[in-house]
Amino acid sequence: MSENTLPTQADIEAKLQRGPYHQWLGITVDAVGEGEITLRAKWREEWVVNPDKRYTHGGILAALIDLTADWALVSKTGRGVPTIDLRVDYHRPAPPGDLRVTGRVIKFGSQFSVAEAQVYDIDDKLVASGRGVYATAAPKA
Amino acid sequence: MSENTLPTQADIEAKLQRGPYHQWLGITVDAVGEGEITLRAKWREEWVVNPDKRYTHGGILAALIDLTADWALVSKTGRGVPTIDLRVDYHRPAPPGDLRVTGRVIKFGSQFSVAEAQVYDIDDKLVASGRGVYATAAPKA
Amino acid sequence: MSENTLPTQADIEAKLQRGPYHQWLGITVDAVGEGEITLRAKWREEWVVNPDKRYTHGGILAALIDLTADWALVSKTGRGVPTIDLRVDYHRPAPPGDLRVTGRVIKFGSQFSVAEAQVYDIDDKLVASGRGVYATAAPKA
Amino acid sequence: MSENTLPTQADIEAKLQRGPYHQWLGITVDAVGEGEITLRAKWREEWVVNPDKRYTHGGILAALIDLTADWALVSKTGRGVPTIDLRVDYHRPAPPGDLRVTGRVIKFGSQFSVAEAQVYDIDDKLVASGRGVYATAAPKA
Repeated sequence: MSENTLPTQADIEAKLQRGPYHQWLGITVDAVGEGEITLRAKWREEWVVNPDKRYTHGGILAALIDLTADWALVSKTGRGVPTIDLRVDYHRPAPPGDLRVTGRVIKFGSQFSVAEAQVYDIDDKLVASGRGVYATAAPKA
Repeated sequence: MSENTLPTQADIEAKLQRGPYHQWLGITVDAVGEGEITLRAKWREEWVVNPDKRYTHGGILAALIDLTADWALVSKTGRGVPTIDLRVDYHRPAPPGDLRVTGRVIKFGSQFSVAEAQVYDIDDKLVASGRGVYATAAPKA
Repeated sequence: MSENTLPTQADIEAKLQRGPYHQWLGITVDAVGEGEITLRAKWREEWVVNPDKRYTHGGILAALIDLTADWALVSKTGRGVPTIDLRVDYHRPAPPGDLRVTGRVIKFGSQFSVAEAQVYDIDDKLVASGRGVYATAAPKA
Repeated sequence: MSENTLPTQADIEAKLQRGPYHQWLGITVDAVGEGEITLRAKWREEWVVNPDKRYTHGGILAALIDLTADWALVSKTGRGVPTIDLRVDYHRPAPPGDLRVTGRVIKFGSQFSVAEAQVYDIDDKLVASGRGVYATAAPKA
């Protein structure tokens, strides 16, 4: 794929779903643009951290921020790229239910890039947000 | 539980395993000390990010760092506490296999606390490390 | 001050300039809104990290992100509040010259809050951006 | 300089003090080892954030963490290298007085590296700690 062609939503979804953990998270692609992406994740009972309150584990939210920020870069990278580091802020507990995650490139660079993501719960409340740095050097030929 | 009694390894494991996501991650407690803990996680095929290279997804490593740093605080908190934020550095790809995670308190505070964790792969190589800030104010009566 | 009255630009500038380090950074207030602020910092030769290339030190940019995110909360807090943690991404070297910094609240909470900031150089290029968590519990009476 | 020769304390101090901001911070080198360094910073009145309590500004502590973690890499890099990102946890207010900062490499890599640092106040209390990711690819010939 040329780096200058925006992959289609179906292309990206197919690539994402090659990953067993992405399948387990029930990731689908809602929308994709230049340096932007919206994904959805399908809630499952195994996500729960506490059986009484049934909130989703912060590690699930961290995974969604990581992968959504990563794939916000796809219009430049054409693929998922290695995460260098990840930072997540937790804003409120996430009740049971599917999650929507929006990602956006902050700075695209030739060696490493920064992107951010926001996770919204089933009532469209912001439950977590964060950023990652990604290794976006071209793979060696 | 009094804040001054160190819970036993079996106590902590029982509390941790009440969480469905902790069960899914196959968390067991290897050792526990004052402000320190070592956990293990049992590898599963669903953790894979890329079916060709079969590395573990960064979101799994982030979850392990979050929960291990959180439970390093257990000698003071007696329970898991809310994560305020989480930061993860990825050092090398994690090959298939069980993971060992060590956690340590950096600063225990009356309102919020900082703890860190390291994830080691099956060959005992450091694959990721990071820190979280946790809400450690006593719950309201 | 009531928490519901937006302080004026002159009020905020006067409060900020009580701090010796804020004076040294040459901080002035460009604009203030509900959960938003724009500050300026006046370049000085002591900011330089490398005498050959004369870029501004990352620690200066970190200070600007910290204080601007902090004071983006002022419409709720009425004052500067303690920083719990700070995270800064460096996007490109900052050449000599005054800096503009925009801040915005991401989540205001009763105990702690998250805000972000962006630093722009004299050519209006984004040189750094980041986030902090701030302790926004009301001071004890 | 060869990458395999540990520079002397005097070498490193001379390189550090070429930077005007390092001079302003009064940086001296206390000790240096393989992947480790201890620096000192000389307190000045301009560091204060609040004229009543006279605590040191968090931006000063952030600068010290950034530069100390960076120069902990010097046994491999031979020089200061660009910071990709920085994360700082604030543990307690820093009273007026000189500061001691210890740095340590967490992971040295061919493209980017992770190092951490701790800041101690005049009473040897931990006031802040944190980490950075640094660009450690060899400069182009």
